[in-house]
Amino acid sequence: MNDFQFQNTTKVYFGKNQLKNLHNEVLKYGNKILIAHGGEFIKNSPLYSKVVNELESNNIQVFELGAVEPNPRHTTVNKGVAMCKKNGIQTVLAIGGGSTIDCCKAIAATSMSESDNIWDLVEGKVKWNNALAVIAMPTIASTGSEMDKSCVIANVDLGIKSGINGELIRPKAAFLDPTNTFSVPARQTACGGYDIMAHLFDMNYFVNSEKYPLQFNVVETLLRIVREQLPVAIKEPTNYEARATMLWAASWALNSFCTSGYKTNAQLHALEQLSSTFDLTHGLGLAIITPKWMKYVLDKDPTTAPDFARFGVNVMGIGDDEDKVEVAYKAIEALQSFIKDELGLPVTLSELGIDDRHFEDMSIKACYGKESLPLAYRVLTREDCLNIYKMCL
Amino acid sequence: MNDFQFQNTTKVYFGKNQLKNLHNEVLKYGNKILIAHGGEFIKNSPLYSKVVNELESNNIQVFELGAVEPNPRHTTVNKGVAMCKKNGIQTVLAIGGGSTIDCCKAIAATSMSESDNIWDLVEGKVKWNNALAVIAMPTIASTGSEMDKSCVIANVDLGIKSGINGELIRPKAAFLDPTNTFSVPARQTACGGYDIMAHLFDMNYFVNSEKYPLQFNVVETLLRIVREQLPVAIKEPTNYEARATMLWAASWALNSFCTSGYKTNAQLHALEQLSSTFDLTHGLGLAIITPKWMKYVLDKDPTTAPDFARFGVNVMGIGDDEDKVEVAYKAIEALQSFIKDELGLPVTLSELGIDDRHFEDMSIKACYGKESLPLAYRVLTREDCLNIYKMCL
Repeated sequence: MNDFQFQNTTKVYFGKNQLKNLHNEVLKYGNKILIAHGGEFIKNSPLYSKVVNELESNNIQVFELGAVEPNPRHTTVNKGVAMCKKNGIQTVLAIGGGSTIDCCKAIAATSMSESDNIWDLVEGKVKWNNALAVIAMPTIASTGSEMDKSCVIANVDLGIKSGINGELIRPKAAFLDPTNTFSVPARQTACGGYDIMAHLFDMNYFVNSEKYPLQFNVVETLLRIVREQLPVAIKEPTNYEARATMLWAASWALNSFCTSGYKTNAQLHALEQLSSTFDLTHGLGLAIITPKWMKYVLDKDPTTAPDFARFGVNVMGIGDDEDKVEVAYKAIEALQSFIKDELGLPVTLSELGIDDRHFEDMSIKACYGKESLPLAYRVLTREDCLNIYKMCL
Repeated sequence: MNDFQFQNTTKVYFGKNQLKNLHNEVLKYGNKILIAHGGEFIKNSPLYSKVVNELESNNIQVFELGAVEPNPRHTTVNKGVAMCKKNGIQTVLAIGGGSTIDCCKAIAATSMSESDNIWDLVEGKVKWNNALAVIAMPTIASTGSEMDKSCVIANVDLGIKSGINGELIRPKAAFLDPTNTFSVPARQTACGGYDIMAHLFDMNYFVNSEKYPLQFNVVETLLRIVREQLPVAIKEPTNYEARATMLWAASWALNSFCTSGYKTNAQLHALEQLSSTFDLTHGLGLAIITPKWMKYVLDKDPTTAPDFARFGVNVMGIGDDEDKVEVAYKAIEALQSFIKDELGLPVTLSELGIDDRHFEDMSIKACYGKESLPLAYRVLTREDCLNIYKMCL
C-alpha cells in the first residue's frame, strides 16, 4: 500500500429533520449568507422557502445567486464574488447538484482573495489562502462534491473547464436530506447514480495496479449496492431507503477513503468528452463510454479478463465460469443491459442523433492535448480514443 | 434510516514515511509535548528514539509519561495532568495501544479544566470545554481509539471503568505506520484483530433492527477482510499489506461511518466482563463469548438463523443451504474453529483455569446493575447472562 494522508472534516447532517441545525452552522461564521441555486425549480420549491425561513428567523441576512449553470461558468462565479465582497458575506450555501456546490466553492475562495475573477485563481495568477465557509445541500445523489475539496468551473470564452482545490473550500457542513432528492426525474436519477458508479470504476476498481484488500472490497461493495438500489430509486422515487442509500453512497464514492493509498488516474473521466461537446449530462456520457472502453481494453489485452469477470460476478451478479474471457464479455453485456433496461438510458450516440464529426477533437482533449492517455489498464493513444468513440456510435 | 450526524476530523498519516510530518502537527499547538507510553518495551524501541529525535531536532521539548497500564488508571492520568499543568504542555502524544491513547485523551481534557483529577470530569463534577491537542501513534491494530472521540479510564479505588467523550479529545492527527505493528506477538495480534471484529458485530451487524444496505454491507465486507487478513498477519508478522489492512480496518471499524444511522447498543461488549474480572485481554474475552452468545440466542430464537447463516456464508465462507437454522449452527462452529485454529486463542475459560465463582457478579455488571440487558436480538436477563457465562466454561 502506498503511503497516504487522509482527512475529511465535513460535518454531515443526514436525514429528514436536520434543517433546524442550519443556523447554528451559519452563525459560526457570521450573519450574512449567499444562497446559490440553479434557478426557478429550486427557488419555487418548498425546500427553498424552508431554508430561507430557518435562516431569517435566526436573524441571518440572506442574499441570492440564481441561475447557476449545469457547468458553472466563471462569469457566474464572479457575479457571486462581487455580491460577497460588496455585502461582507461570510458563508455560501449551495442548494442543488454538484455544479452549484462547485460554484460556491469557487466563490468562497475568490471572495477572500485579492482578485474578483476566479480564473486568476485557476491560472495561479493570484494566490488564495483563505475562503468563506461553504455549506452544501445536495438535491441529487451524484457527484459527491458535498464532502470533497475540489471544484470544476467552465470558462466559455476560452473553451476550457478547470478548477481549484484545497481544504479551505471543503464544505464545513453538508445537509443530506434524501427527501430533497424525491423529485429528481428518473433520467437524472439514473445519470447521477451512474456518475457514482463511474467514480468507483475510475478511482481504484478498474486498474491494473495492486489491489488493497480493504479499500478494493469496499469499493466493490459500494458498486454492488448502487447497482441494486439505483433501479429502486428510479422506479420508486419516494422510496426513502433507496434515496438515502444513493445519497450516502455518492458522498462516500468521492470522499477519499476509497482511494486511500492508490495512485491512479481516471481514464473513463478523461474519455468523457461527450458532455462538454454535445451538452449531455456527464453521467450519461460516462454510461455510454464505459462498456465500449471495457470491450476495447479486453479485445486488446485478454489479461484484463479476470478483473472484468470479477466485476460481472460480484457486482452484476452473473454466473462465474473457468473461461474468464467469456465471463468478462458477459460482464460487459450485463453492464450494457443494466444501463439500457434498468436505468433506461441510451447506450449509443446514434440514439441521440450524434455523429462522428467531433471525434478527432475529443480524442485530443481526452489525451489532455498530449499524444496519449496513461494509466488504468493500458496507455490509450489518440487513435485508441478515436476507436472507442466510434464504438459509441 | 434514522437521522444521524457524522464528522471525523482526525488527520491520518498512513504509511512508512510519515514521521517527518510529526513536528508540523505538534507545532500547530506549541513547542512542548508529553509522550505517553506503556513502558520499557516502547521506550527501548527504535520507534521511540526516532520520534524523540524528530521532535527535538525541531526544537520541541519532550516530556515523558511511562508505565501507562493496559486499563489506564485515573491516578496515571492525574500524574500526566500534573506534568502538563506544571510545564505548560500543549500536546499529548500516545505511542501504544488503545489504553495509552485513551489515557492521553483523559489527560488532554483534564489539563485544560479546573480540576487536577480526571474523575471529577467523569462524574460531571467539573465541566470541560477545552482540551490539549491529542496525537495518536498506535502500535497495534485493535481499538480504533486513534480516530475516535471517547476514552475509558479505570478507577481502581472504586472498582469502576468509565470515561468521557467529545470532539475536543478526538485526535488531531494519527500516525498509522504498519511497520510499528510488526513486533506485536501472535497472540496480541489475534486479540487486537478480534476486537475489530467484535466492534463490527456489535455496532450494527448482529442486530435485529433494519439493515441499511450501504452501511451493513460495508460492515460485512470489513468483517470478511479481517477474517482473511488477520491469520496472515499472525503467520507473517512482517507482511506489510496484511498489517496495513488490519491497521486501517481498526480505524474504520470505530470511526462512526459503519454505525451511521443506527441506534443500537453493544451486547457483546456488555457481556465482556471477563477481561476486567480475570485480567484477560479484552479481545480474548470477546472471542470466548461471541460463539456462546450466538448459540444461546439461536437456541432461544430460531428466527435469528438467517442473520447468523448469512454471516457464515458471506464472512466465514461456509456453504449455503435452504435450512437456515442448520447453516446458522455451522456458522457458529466455523467462527469457533476460526478463533481456535486460525487465531490460536483459547475458546473456553477452563483452558485458562477460570471457574464460575465470579459469574453472578459479572451478570450484574453486564446488565449495568439493572435486571436485564436490552437490544441486539433479544433482551438478556441476568439469568441469561449467567447461562452464557456457564457456556464459556
